[in-house]
Amino acid sequence: MALRVQKYGGTSVADIDRINNVAGRVIKAHESGDQIVVVLSAMAGVTDGLISLANQASPRPDKRELDVLLATGEQTTAALLAMILKFRGYKAKSFLGFQAGILTDQTSGKARILDIECKKIQDAIQKGNIIVVAGFQGADANGDITTLGRGGSDTSAVAIASALKADVCEIFTDVDGVYTTDPRICEKARKIKRISYEEMLEMAILGAKVLQIRSVEFAKKYNVPVHVRSSFNEEEGTMVVNESSDMESVVVSGVTCDMNEARITLKKVPDQPGISAKIFTPLANAEIMVDMIIQNTRSGGETDLTFTVTKDDFERAKEISERVAKEVGADEVLTKKEIAKVSVIGLGMKSHSGVAATMFQALASENINIRLISTSEIRISCVILAKYAELAVRTLHAAFNLDKERQ
Amino acid sequence: MALRVQKYGGTSVADIDRINNVAGRVIKAHESGDQIVVVLSAMAGVTDGLISLANQASPRPDKRELDVLLATGEQTTAALLAMILKFRGYKAKSFLGFQAGILTDQTSGKARILDIECKKIQDAIQKGNIIVVAGFQGADANGDITTLGRGGSDTSAVAIASALKADVCEIFTDVDGVYTTDPRICEKARKIKRISYEEMLEMAILGAKVLQIRSVEFAKKYNVPVHVRSSFNEEEGTMVVNESSDMESVVVSGVTCDMNEARITLKKVPDQPGISAKIFTPLANAEIMVDMIIQNTRSGGETDLTFTVTKDDFERAKEISERVAKEVGADEVLTKKEIAKVSVIGLGMKSHSGVAATMFQALASENINIRLISTSEIRISCVILAKYAELAVRTLHAAFNLDKERQ
Repeated sequence: MALRVQKYGGTSVADIDRINNVAGRVIKAHESGDQIVVVLSAMAGVTDGLISLANQASPRPDKRELDVLLATGEQTTAALLAMILKFRGYKAKSFLGFQAGILTDQTSGKARILDIECKKIQDAIQKGNIIVVAGFQGADANGDITTLGRGGSDTSAVAIASALKADVCEIFTDVDGVYTTDPRICEKARKIKRISYEEMLEMAILGAKVLQIRSVEFAKKYNVPVHVRSSFNEEEGTMVVNESSDMESVVVSGVTCDMNEARITLKKVPDQPGISAKIFTPLANAEIMVDMIIQNTRSGGETDLTFTVTKDDFERAKEISERVAKEVGADEVLTKKEIAKVSVIGLGMKSHSGVAATMFQALASENINIRLISTSEIRISCVILAKYAELAVRTLHAAFNLDKERQ
Repeated sequence: MALRVQKYGGTSVADIDRINNVAGRVIKAHESGDQIVVVLSAMAGVTDGLISLANQASPRPDKRELDVLLATGEQTTAALLAMILKFRGYKAKSFLGFQAGILTDQTSGKARILDIECKKIQDAIQKGNIIVVAGFQGADANGDITTLGRGGSDTSAVAIASALKADVCEIFTDVDGVYTTDPRICEKARKIKRISYEEMLEMAILGAKVLQIRSVEFAKKYNVPVHVRSSFNEEEGTMVVNESSDMESVVVSGVTCDMNEARITLKKVPDQPGISAKIFTPLANAEIMVDMIIQNTRSGGETDLTFTVTKDDFERAKEISERVAKEVGADEVLTKKEIAKVSVIGLGMKSHSGVAATMFQALASENINIRLISTSEIRISCVILAKYAELAVRTLHAAFNLDKERQ
């Protein structure tokens, strides 16, 4: 008998019919003899509807009260699934975040889970109940309702799985696993059977929207085996687990493409100490996240400074950059929105040399110019013109032998 | 400085514009120097929508889970009002039932309030907050969400007013007070300035939908002054208070008319001991509430047995009656749905004789036949044919001098 935490996302519970389908899957798992804890998102679209209601109430909705409002979305689906399970003859019980003992800090809107006091859930499991937990929500030490940020139900599920020492945390979603790259771009994309937390984290950060980043961090920290799989079929998905010797020994596990950044270049910035701080402090104060930063020294005591921001922040970042450029005496500000960041990710990079060279050669072979490069221990990212994005992904996918089916 | 609990019903918070109006009233009361605790219902129609959703999920929604679902309605309005108050520059804080310390028994769907631990609210008041409480909901000793039944927000408000020892509990609604009778039936209906808990209770039971019956019971038990008034104007409404010497010294305070009952008669029932139990036990088992019961002894050891039930229960009650009639050897079952129950209510009846005689004479003077009579200490009710209902109400209103304006 295994203890399984199953998380179903918004599209899986979008209406009563789909919640009934979820009930069917949950019952099947329960009937197999396993103990089941279900974590649910709000029905697709409901959270956006609530945010729009809040924006009608106030142009700057108070964050504490917004959390109280948003928490109703998951409360609704949890109650409905528990009703359906009971109607079908099974013992079931819904738990809201505070009832599930999910203690968070007080950061409304993106609270972090501090602890899970899961005795109530354990008791209810022992009594033979299927447990249905409202995802995305918790309560702080004052008993105030908090929410965990977009996609927070993934984190709820992983955290509950960790607290309950569950055998697996199954994330049911509308895709059937994690792919070597986006199948819409590259038809040779393959489902990855096993991937390490580190690689999954890089892929999530780079925009593979299968799992919320924080849920992967949580899974990694507490070593929770996560199974990403489709809620619409029975196939095995992708296991996200600790790096281990039986992992596919590949150098590169996946290729990602992020079209959501824009590039800003300050030309001929005086090359003085402290100049970078002058440029990036105002951006930080405006809560603009800067991703890649490249500085090219030119002759004559001047440098070009290039960085990328998300397209959402682009207009504000551009304004600030133009103001700062005048202040520091830079020549001009150049911008480019039509860029793509293609990345290759793989634990194997830690022990294999030559990955960067292979990547650059592959792109060069298609005459794709690299504008910016950044790297981490297990990732190499190149910024290229957006029009080459799909070609670059397919080229890299082939260059690192990801096209081939593996055992 | 007074402490005022203000309750706003579903039509007063039906959309963001109306919630903004409520915010305006609340701010005005706060600006006058009073401490304000607001109790809110769900937006008009929302609770019905949630019930319909639950019925899609299950033909017999589990009551515990239905409470979890329904509680989202008041959670939504409480969060929205608190947001608006904060946006307008006031300190405000929403409290869900469990956060407000509303401890109930475990009767899902119609829980009774056992205790209110209002220290959190008191602390928040002391810090200068306007308090916004989600009405209709509480939590039982296990921390399970419970709801108080239809109109339960009135009860929430009165109970919170009692716990906080508030100076007044203001019930804002879409009518501007309690009337001597239904103004839609009798244009001479007058707003009552002060009415006793006992009279209000009789009027609520008889279908004057201004206040939930249990809220009046609660107010009576804990002596909470209740002010029923309109959320759409500034006029004084009706004070519901303890019987006192300064109350208008009238014999009859109000006339009500209840069209929601139907009559069932079992003709020629054998007049034997235990026969009533044989008839009413199956009705009780079917959870059918019987209101009035009249037994007329006929000659020859037979009686006619007549009773009334609500129209909702009529078809089921008729079926059961016909079955029982056969079993006990009654002659036949006669039914009538087109009936009305008109009642006069007044504390003065306790000390004045002749009220019944005046009522019967007034009805007789208009040739209105009385089919059934029942009385309580402060109420006399007559069942008549429905077509005479409006005439009867106007006649009684005049006969008891309610047409005249008082000071």
